[in-house]
Amino acid sequence: MFYLSEFTNFKGLIATDSGAFQQYMYNKNEFNINPDEIEKFQEDIGSDFSVILDVPVQLTDNYENAKIKVLTTIERAKSNIKNRSNEKCHWFGPIHGGIFPDLLNLSIQEMKKLDFSVFAIGGLVKAFLEYRFDLTLQILLTVKKDIIPNRPIHMFGLGLPQFFSLAVACGCDIMDSAAYILFAKENRYFTLSTGTRRLDELEEFPCYCPICSSYTPKEIKNCNEEMRSKLIAKHNLFLSLSEMKTIRQAIREGNLWELVQTRIRNHPNLVKAMELIRKNRTFFEIFEKVFKTHGCLYTSPLDLYRPSFYRYEIKLIKNYREPKEVKYLIILPELDVKELNSPTIKYWLEQIDNNILIKRELINIIFVSSFYGIIPLDLNNIYPLGQFESIDINDLNDTLYQSVLQKAEIFFQYHLKFYKKCALLIPLKYFNQYNEELEFPINHPIHGIISLLKSKFNLKVSIFNKIEDLLHFFKSDT
Amino acid sequence: MFYLSEFTNFKGLIATDSGAFQQYMYNKNEFNINPDEIEKFQEDIGSDFSVILDVPVQLTDNYENAKIKVLTTIERAKSNIKNRSNEKCHWFGPIHGGIFPDLLNLSIQEMKKLDFSVFAIGGLVKAFLEYRFDLTLQILLTVKKDIIPNRPIHMFGLGLPQFFSLAVACGCDIMDSAAYILFAKENRYFTLSTGTRRLDELEEFPCYCPICSSYTPKEIKNCNEEMRSKLIAKHNLFLSLSEMKTIRQAIREGNLWELVQTRIRNHPNLVKAMELIRKNRTFFEIFEKVFKTHGCLYTSPLDLYRPSFYRYEIKLIKNYREPKEVKYLIILPELDVKELNSPTIKYWLEQIDNNILIKRELINIIFVSSFYGIIPLDLNNIYPLGQFESIDINDLNDTLYQSVLQKAEIFFQYHLKFYKKCALLIPLKYFNQYNEELEFPINHPIHGIISLLKSKFNLKVSIFNKIEDLLHFFKSDT
Repeated sequence: MFYLSEFTNFKGLIATDSGAFQQYMYNKNEFNINPDEIEKFQEDIGSDFSVILDVPVQLTDNYENAKIKVLTTIERAKSNIKNRSNEKCHWFGPIHGGIFPDLLNLSIQEMKKLDFSVFAIGGLVKAFLEYRFDLTLQILLTVKKDIIPNRPIHMFGLGLPQFFSLAVACGCDIMDSAAYILFAKENRYFTLSTGTRRLDELEEFPCYCPICSSYTPKEIKNCNEEMRSKLIAKHNLFLSLSEMKTIRQAIREGNLWELVQTRIRNHPNLVKAMELIRKNRTFFEIFEKVFKTHGCLYTSPLDLYRPSFYRYEIKLIKNYREPKEVKYLIILPELDVKELNSPTIKYWLEQIDNNILIKRELINIIFVSSFYGIIPLDLNNIYPLGQFESIDINDLNDTLYQSVLQKAEIFFQYHLKFYKKCALLIPLKYFNQYNEELEFPINHPIHGIISLLKSKFNLKVSIFNKIEDLLHFFKSDT
Repeated sequence: MFYLSEFTNFKGLIATDSGAFQQYMYNKNEFNINPDEIEKFQEDIGSDFSVILDVPVQLTDNYENAKIKVLTTIERAKSNIKNRSNEKCHWFGPIHGGIFPDLLNLSIQEMKKLDFSVFAIGGLVKAFLEYRFDLTLQILLTVKKDIIPNRPIHMFGLGLPQFFSLAVACGCDIMDSAAYILFAKENRYFTLSTGTRRLDELEEFPCYCPICSSYTPKEIKNCNEEMRSKLIAKHNLFLSLSEMKTIRQAIREGNLWELVQTRIRNHPNLVKAMELIRKNRTFFEIFEKVFKTHGCLYTSPLDLYRPSFYRYEIKLIKNYREPKEVKYLIILPELDVKELNSPTIKYWLEQIDNNILIKRELINIIFVSSFYGIIPLDLNNIYPLGQFESIDINDLNDTLYQSVLQKAEIFFQYHLKFYKKCALLIPLKYFNQYNEELEFPINHPIHGIISLLKSKFNLKVSIFNKIEDLLHFFKSDT
């Protein structure tokens, strides 16, 4: 008996595979493996993480075939547990079913009863090769929602680094270690900027990893095939590992969604897969931290899918209470920066606080905000309402503009009844954070609020461009 | 006299600065420099690229002060030319004026008359520190449009790598070499994933450059200040250089806009600056290549700003002619993939080509496409109409959806008059590229085309879900 760690002279954890995928992939009849034998072999050579000999369901399998494969894998998983003899060996439990929801569910339900250290989703290699990120994420989320929560999830075949961050955001813990070498064998070089490139397209390496610091593309082209694919594989691996470090670092800093936003622009199919975040927002909301050490950056309407927006929507309806005595509602536009950072908003608030017409306690103030919709002034320091920077709304067809109106409508449905009068402030000009005087934008969503209030709510609403006039309007019938 | 190349033992080109910025920045009275002296000194030490002693206009300068500074810089530029004594020394001609358009224009007009090897835009350091990318790009574009086209443009202060690709797309050729070290002195570490990080936020380096391969964050924190900032500076420089290589490579491959799309998601202000691409689209269109070696990836509605869309809009109006005999127009929806890659579209086209009801020459076919609006079948192989992959349209408020309708309206205004009858095909189901049968999406913009045609154009229009019925409709009055 020999031990892998001695053979490889490697001190870290070592994982091995059973050869199930190879059996299918290279379709060699003489390549006969027996589950008991190959599983025992992995234990014997001292593998830290071994895989049972599953029967991977392929995307092209019909239902009957897929069902047989799922059931066989479950049987083998059960007999693997009985046969285990090395306690130091941890086992990957493969989950299959793919595009057949009931088979996938069957696989999850049976496998989760069994003692596996890692659950591994299989049969998706073809989907990864075809960049079907939406399909693979859908399956990942189905598994994640129902599997034992404290067991890591691995995805067989997931090896393209531009997909790592989105997969991690959806609950994948361990990536596949095959892509870096498989791509290298086809002279394909990973980048995180414009996707995977063929070596012969590269005049210079856009990278400073140890390989790219030592060789030019031309030098690697001139290597023999073995050396060439070895060098490209090493670069691919450095890039994959640096992306893993980037992701871990982003999680620590609370920037994972920001990272996902930059990575998904690598390919339209990654953006399409983001749709699943929206569809599963109740699930994501559960795991979203209450606060993070960084403010948020919103660079796209897709950021509206982030769980914090859904959480805010719910909390605003369920938990927000108007201060007791309020009678008057002032609706202010959010400007280029938050509250006291904006000279104009600061001035407005001072005018309201120091006015002699209306008791301050009778007034409530809310902001019309491009991403959050409505932000009451008294929530303005609650994370992340006062800790974000965002893009502007560009035009009235903008998803953001419409989203503000929808959110405002919900807010008004619940809260407008507490007020006797309501007034909007729409200035002609304002000062931005650099103290430059600018025209107030005609596409600010506060303009849409006016017609919303007039058409759907039965309350005295007026529009002013000065705080003073607005307060006089309130005063007029006190 | 000593020579820089010997002193530094560096074989490449060496650039020096005059100290104008330092004079302002550190505001030391004793730091007295005389233009003739410092310019002669740069020649004497063998600098390959020297800068005249300009007087940088600051964003906070009032108009009068700014004007004096602009005029003084122009005078000094003129006297520099008279005083030059070393032909091997090339000169940077600084351009100022910043936020005052007429001063900026004055500076451009005067400086372009003078023999400078590089034109350099100054006075923007504060704008870069405040991430005012829109302002700096606006000034860059103003200069680029009017300066001598074969001279490179440098931007003093431009050193954040996440901004490089957008700046290059707008005509900047040379970046500033100060940021990497200035940021390092404040222990700020560059990344291209989630922006600039403080060293003490990093538990691991998300990078494999020679520095990050050799040290952990903890080890660098424990270095003395000089060593620490030196090591961070080196990483920052590796990252900046790898971004320059990435950009050059992207330009060669025709992927620069794709790269810009990933980088701008680093910060909302970068996305805001993209608006300038749209506003200057006639200018960008001039320099857009007719074809590239790669297909295009459209990952966001912001891609609509790319010059190729503007070019297509114009060409479709000005250059597209219907085939001579056409009488009937078939409007088909673009599906998940192009033409013959889509089993359903392939089937439709075969049915039309082989039909016995209507002579094929009498029929013209156009597609309703999410990014290009209308694509006639006969243009479908012209770059990039048949060589792109894109995101889907998500909902009817989507910018993309509205953009399709606008483009379709323009097309119909020019082209509908050539047809006697027009029919849309809207299937109930279709097969995607994986041969899976799917419901036809209710938010496909072809639905909007119907009401557009009915409300604005006076032509017999009918909707069918089978090609056969559609052809019978044409046949019915031939």
